[in-house]
Formats: sequence, C-alpha cells, structure tokens
Amino acid sequence: MQLEIITIGEELLLGFTIDTNAAHLARALAPLGVRVVRRATVSDDAGAIAGAVSEALDRTGAVITTGGLGPTSDDATKPAIAGLFGRALLLDDAILRGIEDRFRQFGYRGQMPPGNRQQALIPEGAEVLLNAHGTAPGIWLEDDRGRWVAMLPGVPREMRGMLRDELLPRIEARTAERPTVVLSRTLRTTGIGESALAERLGDLSREVDGLPLAYLPGWEGADLRLTVSDQTAATATRMLDDASAKLRQVVGEHIYGEGDDDLAAVVLERCRRRGLTIAVAESCTGGLLGVRLTDIAGSSDVFVGGVVAYADMSKTELAGVPAALISQHGAVSDEVARALAHGIRQRLGAAIGVGITGIAGPGGATAEKPVGLVWTSVAAGDTERSFSRTYLGDRREVRQRAVQGALEAIRRMVVALD
Amino acid sequence: MQLEIITIGEELLLGFTIDTNAAHLARALAPLGVRVVRRATVSDDAGAIAGAVSEALDRTGAVITTGGLGPTSDDATKPAIAGLFGRALLLDDAILRGIEDRFRQFGYRGQMPPGNRQQALIPEGAEVLLNAHGTAPGIWLEDDRGRWVAMLPGVPREMRGMLRDELLPRIEARTAERPTVVLSRTLRTTGIGESALAERLGDLSREVDGLPLAYLPGWEGADLRLTVSDQTAATATRMLDDASAKLRQVVGEHIYGEGDDDLAAVVLERCRRRGLTIAVAESCTGGLLGVRLTDIAGSSDVFVGGVVAYADMSKTELAGVPAALISQHGAVSDEVARALAHGIRQRLGAAIGVGITGIAGPGGATAEKPVGLVWTSVAAGDTERSFSRTYLGDRREVRQRAVQGALEAIRRMVVALD
Repeated sequence: MQLEIITIGEELLLGFTIDTNAAHLARALAPLGVRVVRRATVSDDAGAIAGAVSEALDRTGAVITTGGLGPTSDDATKPAIAGLFGRALLLDDAILRGIEDRFRQFGYRGQMPPGNRQQALIPEGAEVLLNAHGTAPGIWLEDDRGRWVAMLPGVPREMRGMLRDELLPRIEARTAERPTVVLSRTLRTTGIGESALAERLGDLSREVDGLPLAYLPGWEGADLRLTVSDQTAATATRMLDDASAKLRQVVGEHIYGEGDDDLAAVVLERCRRRGLTIAVAESCTGGLLGVRLTDIAGSSDVFVGGVVAYADMSKTELAGVPAALISQHGAVSDEVARALAHGIRQRLGAAIGVGITGIAGPGGATAEKPVGLVWTSVAAGDTERSFSRTYLGDRREVRQRAVQGALEAIRRMVVALD
Repeated sequence: MQLEIITIGEELLLGFTIDTNAAHLARALAPLGVRVVRRATVSDDAGAIAGAVSEALDRTGAVITTGGLGPTSDDATKPAIAGLFGRALLLDDAILRGIEDRFRQFGYRGQMPPGNRQQALIPEGAEVLLNAHGTAPGIWLEDDRGRWVAMLPGVPREMRGMLRDELLPRIEARTAERPTVVLSRTLRTTGIGESALAERLGDLSREVDGLPLAYLPGWEGADLRLTVSDQTAATATRMLDDASAKLRQVVGEHIYGEGDDDLAAVVLERCRRRGLTIAVAESCTGGLLGVRLTDIAGSSDVFVGGVVAYADMSKTELAGVPAALISQHGAVSDEVARALAHGIRQRLGAAIGVGITGIAGPGGATAEKPVGLVWTSVAAGDTERSFSRTYLGDRREVRQRAVQGALEAIRRMVVALD
C-alpha cells in the first residue's frame, strides 16, 4: 500500500515547529508494508488543505493528515475534507458528552469554551478515532471507491496514541491480503569512522546478500542500516538476520547495539551483570556523562555519583587531583585525566572510575592543544586505559562525542573482563 | 514573495531523518518578506522530483530544494530539474578543480571517487552557489519567464552556510522592491502556566494592538509570540516594540528573555555582571544543571563546578550532607536540598550554592512522595530559598523542568540582589 502524509499548520510552515509527526508516521507504517511516497505541509487554510488532499488522493487513494482538529477557528481540517467528500458536518452527542466530561475531570468550572463544541462535529458517514490523550477525536473518512483520509491531531502525544490504538489496526486489516513489507535493521558502531568501516567491509561495503547497506554517521558513531523490500515479514526477518550476522562477523567489537540501543544503557547493563559500579569526574563535558548514565531509569544500582571538576581548584577539592600535577602538565593532560579517574574512584569506592578533561571550544586552545582535544581515562581493578582524541564539531558536538568515547571505553574494558 | 520548499530524500520519507531544513529555511526567509506557502518531501526518484518541482513552479514560480546533490547514484536532483528546464548538464572545470583540491586538502590520497566528478556537472545557463562546507555546489536555475529553482545540499551545515552566504543575498535583491514582511517576536516566560498567563493578560490575552498572540508551552516554560504581517520592516519592528512593551508591563518578572535566549545564558550573564560564582549539587538531575551551564561557551568564569550526588553515600562524601539528615528526612526532602546547596557552596567557596533532589521516575515514588517531586534550594549570602514542585512528564521531562526551575530560582535571587 502507498500513501501520502499531509501535515497541517501555520506553525510548521513558518518553521516555528519542527515536523516530527511525519517521520513518526513513516516509521510506524513501514512494518505493515505501507510506503509513504510523498509528504506535504500546508497552512490552516481550507482551500490549501482541500487542494493538497485532493491531489494526494488522486495519486495514491490513501492520505493521513495531522493537525487542524483543535478548538480554535484556525482548525479547518474537518470542514475542508468533509467538503471535498461532499459530506455535511453533524453534531455527535456522545462525543460532545465525552468532551464535557473531560473538562469536568480536569477541574474546569463554568461553561466549556464554544470552540470545543466544534470538536464534536463529525462528517456524515465518518468513523471516529478515539483520542485517549486529548479532546479532539480523529476521523476516518472513506468514499464509495475505497479512497480514504485519516485525520489525526497535531499534538505529537495525541497523534501517537491515536495512531497506535486506532489507526494502525484499521490499516493492518486492509493490508492483510497484501503482506509484503519494507523492513530495516540498524547495527550501531562507534569508535570507527565511516571510511574505515567501508574498508573493513570490503565486498560487503555496498550490499550484503543483495540488501543495500546505508552508512549513517553522527556523533554517536556510524550506524549501518540494512533494508529489505517487497518480501513477506517472515522472509524479510530471516534475510535481515542472515545479512546482519555477516556484518557482525566482519565489524565485530565495534558494534555495541541495534536499532535505538543507547550506549549508556548497554554500559549500565554490562556493569550490572558483573556487579560493577561507576563513578565519574568530568571537566570539559560539564556533567554530560552523568546525564547520559542517569537518563536511563534504574541507573542508580550502577552509577554511584560524580563530580563536575570545571575550575582547576574543583579538580583538587572534589577529585583529589594534586594542584602540582595540574600546574606541571596542564589541566588537559594524560596525567590529570588519570588522576581524575583514580581520585573519584577512590573517593566513592566505585569499581570503575572515569576521568575526562579537554577543550570543548571555541576558546581555550593553545598551539599544542587544539579545540576538540580530550583526554579520557578509565580505571578498573589493576587495569587502566587512558587516551586522547581530537573530536570534530562545535562545542556541543565535541562534548557529545567525548562522552560517547568515554562510554565506549568503559564498554570495552568491561567486555575485556568477560 | 511566495515560494515552496521541496526536501528530497528517501531517508526523510522513511522517517529515519527528521526534516529540520524546511523549518530553518522558513525562519530565515520570513524577515525578507518571503512566505513559504507549501512544503513537500519526495524520494530521490527523478520523476517524483520533476513532478513536485513542476507543480510548485506552477503555483508560485519560486522553489527551493534541499538534498540529492551528493556524489552517489541516489542523487537525482540536478538531472531531474535540468530536464524540467530543458537544459543539458555540462562539466564545469573550475568546480571540478575545486572538488579535487578539497579532496587533497583533507589528505585523500589516490583517485577521487568517480561520483564526485558528477558534482561538477552544472545545468546550462545556471548560476553556481558556492559551498564553503562541502563538495556539492548549489545551483540557481531560472527560466526566461523569471521562474526559478534554487538547489541546496541536504546536509544541514552545508545547507545553512550556502543559504546565508549565497541564496539569501540573491533573494533579498529580488524582493527589494516588494518590501512587506512577516515578523515575529517571542517573549520567553518560565515558572508560570499557560492559563495563569492568559488570566494575568486579561484583555491582552488574545491580541495586543491587533497583533495575534500565540502561547507556546514546553518544558522551558511558556513562550508568548506576537506576529505582524504585511507591513514594511520598519513599521513591523515598531509595532512589535510597542506590543511587547505592553506584554512586559503585565507579565513582568516572569519574562527571562526573547527569541532563542537560553535561561542558562541569562543566569550566567547576570552573575558575571555582579561577579558571582555558582556551584551545584545535583541528585535526580544527574548533572543536567552542570551541562546546561557549561553548554554556554565562557561559562568557566561563573560556574566553578559541582557534584552529582546520586547515591546517598555520595551526598555525604561529596557535598557533606550528614548521613543522619538523610535517614531522618529521606534523600528527597527540604532538609537535604538545603544541605546540598550549603555543602557544595562551602566546599567550592562559591557565591551561590544550588541543591536539587527529587524523584525523576518512573520508579522510586512513595505514598507521600510522588514521581516528579523535586526539592530545590538556592543559597547566596544570607539569603536562602528552598521550594518543592511536582513536575509533569516522563523521566527526561521531569529532569529538564527541574533544571529549568533551578535556573529560574537562581535568576530571581540574583535579580532580587539588584
């Protein structure tokens, strides 16, 4: 099945809101074998909406819209599309009562604003898509030739809930007899560049068993994505299993996960299994390693705590780095990174200590120490690893890459213990 | 001037990449009085590209595309649009030499990949838009009726540089004789809800001097945006000045900045002016307050350092919180927040100490202490302020809101010192 997505809203056109709904829809539809062939964004103007929906219906016969279902006069989606289908808007008493209940439930006293009454208007012959997270119901409208438009709200949380609970099951029922899918699998690597990966992959660098291989570089590392099209779900899964096994054989230790796996979560899980705890002492990353680890719920059984040793005196005061070491080697040095790792490990009695010190930029560089230079040290048991890298990018990216590099160093050290 | 934006790429349609280019373009064009009236996204297929560009040209006569200018066979933008304009692709020797130079400069030894040669093909009669950040040049193609397409690369950094340096000046030259603009101004508030803001604004809650007022709530707070359309730049600016002065009068102390102002940057600047330093002791936020402050270049003259006192023993070890206080009141309590703020302030000799302790969720709640409950304490001189809030949202959002709340508390304390 092919369909088009139309996102509606002046906010999107003006660029004040980034359109994340379209990407979410595309990813949710792919496993059902539904392919998004075009996306468009138009304003809240009824004419523009009707025009775009009409063109899209002519091309694919299937359209999902988001936005323009709210209670304000800007919200023109329903009347525009009802008009296109030649349907009147009728007040649905059950929906009206539901909206009124919701207002009472949230402690709203007094009269419901008249705009919300408008949300209970439903095009003749339409099916209602329930909204578990807001007042605006969604609409499924279909003509006698089987062409359909599904109207979802623009608020991402409402849209996602309605998509999952109401729309995907309907689409799945329609595609059941056409069971080919597009499936992807992503292997996540870090600590190795895109070109080094391609070199290492050799014959597999462009495709694996006929499946095209895409390289997706970013600050987290380079992701490798395999895609299979026009197969049944079972065949596609088997083909992805086989092809990714081949990639794993060649790329090996550089792969830390699949799909959306987060390196911090991988590190926490590996440490948890071995009963290892982590303490960190960060300078240039300002607490970002702590944030990455504590972004994961349940991190407290592994992550003990840390210090943000930003000023030199705080390196001494918080992590016990001798002031003489700093003045002798400079704050950004192998010696200080090691002293940070050992100092915080000892102070908090953790199994693993991590020290990070570097120059995030844009200022602070010297002739010998460029922007992006970061020393990282990981200490665990009798083992210690310390290294420097010069990370590319702006301040934010240097910090993100430095933290990812530190997480990878922890992962490798724990893997080596296995 | 009206125009349409077409973003090109399978990655965008599949939803693997979020389209940020379209929003950036719209925001950059608005101050020139250029209005984006429609956006579309199509795949790398030449037929789809030519179809979408042709329809858009029929509607507005002006189109910007992003993507599909790279060196791989996926990159079909140039041939598709050259075909639409009936122009041949010719090899441009100067551009070819530039690309070869760039390869050498980045230490590439051996033959340049043949795909990069393709980037030096330019449609007959086109103008080249220089790319300061990559190999793919952009293209400006115009027909004899004055209809034009500007093709920009898809990589955001390259696109943004080329837009600023090459495309905006060209568009500005064309719009000089049609000088009406759409301008917006955003006032940023925090620590006050959307409905409380509207109540406070009263008669001004929907529009100010005829300018519509939009409420944009998020974890940073609620932004208030005024928009003026179809005026000259000078009139629009004056109208925005007048209307925002009225808003400021009513909303007052809740406004911390305008536009993209970051609360952390505002806090740093206020502290810098008074020579105040900050030290932080964070528990549930895991280092995020440190990250927010150190995201700003030059923060080291205000931010001394901090601790991530995650486990209870680290609160004692790193910030000197008495263990008895924790066992008596619990780690999430007014007393512990105060002890964190005082402890870190004393240890690092800072002017301002901040303590944060709470339950970010999803686990960890008790009957008395729900998920989202956060105690924050700010201590400066003889002044101390401690408060609890129950922040809404998931783990990430609770942490973001808690840090924003702490920054706002610092800002108010420093403002009170003035």
